[in-house]
Amino acid sequence: MKTVLIKEDILSRNNERAAEVRELTAKRKIFYINVMSSPGAGKTTLLTKVIPLLAGKYRIGVIEADIDSDKDALEIERATGVKTIQMHTGGACHITCQMSFEALEALGTEGLDVVFLENIGNLVCPAEFDTGADMNLVLLSVPEGDDKPLKYPLMFEVASCVVLTKLDVAHIFDFDPERALANVRKRNGKAEVFSVCAKTGEGVGALVSCLEGRIGEKLG
Amino acid sequence: MKTVLIKEDILSRNNERAAEVRELTAKRKIFYINVMSSPGAGKTTLLTKVIPLLAGKYRIGVIEADIDSDKDALEIERATGVKTIQMHTGGACHITCQMSFEALEALGTEGLDVVFLENIGNLVCPAEFDTGADMNLVLLSVPEGDDKPLKYPLMFEVASCVVLTKLDVAHIFDFDPERALANVRKRNGKAEVFSVCAKTGEGVGALVSCLEGRIGEKLG
Repeated sequence: MKTVLIKEDILSRNNERAAEVRELTAKRKIFYINVMSSPGAGKTTLLTKVIPLLAGKYRIGVIEADIDSDKDALEIERATGVKTIQMHTGGACHITCQMSFEALEALGTEGLDVVFLENIGNLVCPAEFDTGADMNLVLLSVPEGDDKPLKYPLMFEVASCVVLTKLDVAHIFDFDPERALANVRKRNGKAEVFSVCAKTGEGVGALVSCLEGRIGEKLG
Repeated sequence: MKTVLIKEDILSRNNERAAEVRELTAKRKIFYINVMSSPGAGKTTLLTKVIPLLAGKYRIGVIEADIDSDKDALEIERATGVKTIQMHTGGACHITCQMSFEALEALGTEGLDVVFLENIGNLVCPAEFDTGADMNLVLLSVPEGDDKPLKYPLMFEVASCVVLTKLDVAHIFDFDPERALANVRKRNGKAEVFSVCAKTGEGVGALVSCLEGRIGEKLG
């Protein structure tokens, strides 16, 4: 019981700080996207496909959060050439708003229009901590199974946009995109849902159009 | 800083209770296995293959932990017929020792030799909380990528046994079992590592032999 109270206290302090992040990104005219999923669902690969399609129109930065290793930041830099920093959480399973604020400052938002935050691969805890982002982009990969919205409800409740990834192997894993969509809908009636295969590029264009729409709403 | 201290306090209280769980399982002559992985790595499917091979020799029980849904407990019961309970964590991202203790009592350990605890699908938090189990069985599925031990170090440090799953799709995902093993070894010099395809049954026999050896060491 005590543990729950402590957690609520941490969460309420976190969510107060989210307003500060939103003030910062409003003042600096930045659209800030929080990318979340299980480990290995394809967050980094998706970013390497989405960023080049946005880069003609917007100046982009990326914050890569990991418990350890610099692999993802190096991969993003190599594939896209955009400004990227690697953030290590010191074992933490999620990004708090404090970390989010500090990461934006460390990245340096001068001259940027869009910042992606690749959160820790975890389908539970990151959903509890508002990072102050304008949008929560949640990936669900085919090999994980189309039942995941039933088992990890909060992540799909907080999603602004759900991207089903690795669609090229749906037949191997008996993953039904319609069933996945129905399960997402049990948690969230509003999120836009996209089916993507980042490897072949299939479906990436529709997702990019959606992002451009959202970015345009904020930045004009 | 305060958050870290609270966490340490929760962890130290948790780990004190782990001794109580170990006393309980010693007294009742039960071998207790904590199964951990990312969401959708194949914990339930692996259990449906492993349990029938152990069931001729040992009386088995299963605790299924999920944030929501009863899907996994129903699947285990249907596929194996062993005594199973579904535990809901009320949003929690891991099983504490208190939950572990209560779940063993709720399952009822009378007449059982081996109990499997299928933890929440999460490659971060469950590794921090000792459940009092005799063995941590950690799954890494091919679609997640062979780099995961680099990015989620603690989970692979606490593993007694690492099972690489979904090996039948290794060629599709450019997953190298040798590289995965080398990455596990950077975190853990002692864990036994197995390659398995639960769908075809390949490699399950070797894992079961290992489990029988460990069970025999405790139960005689």
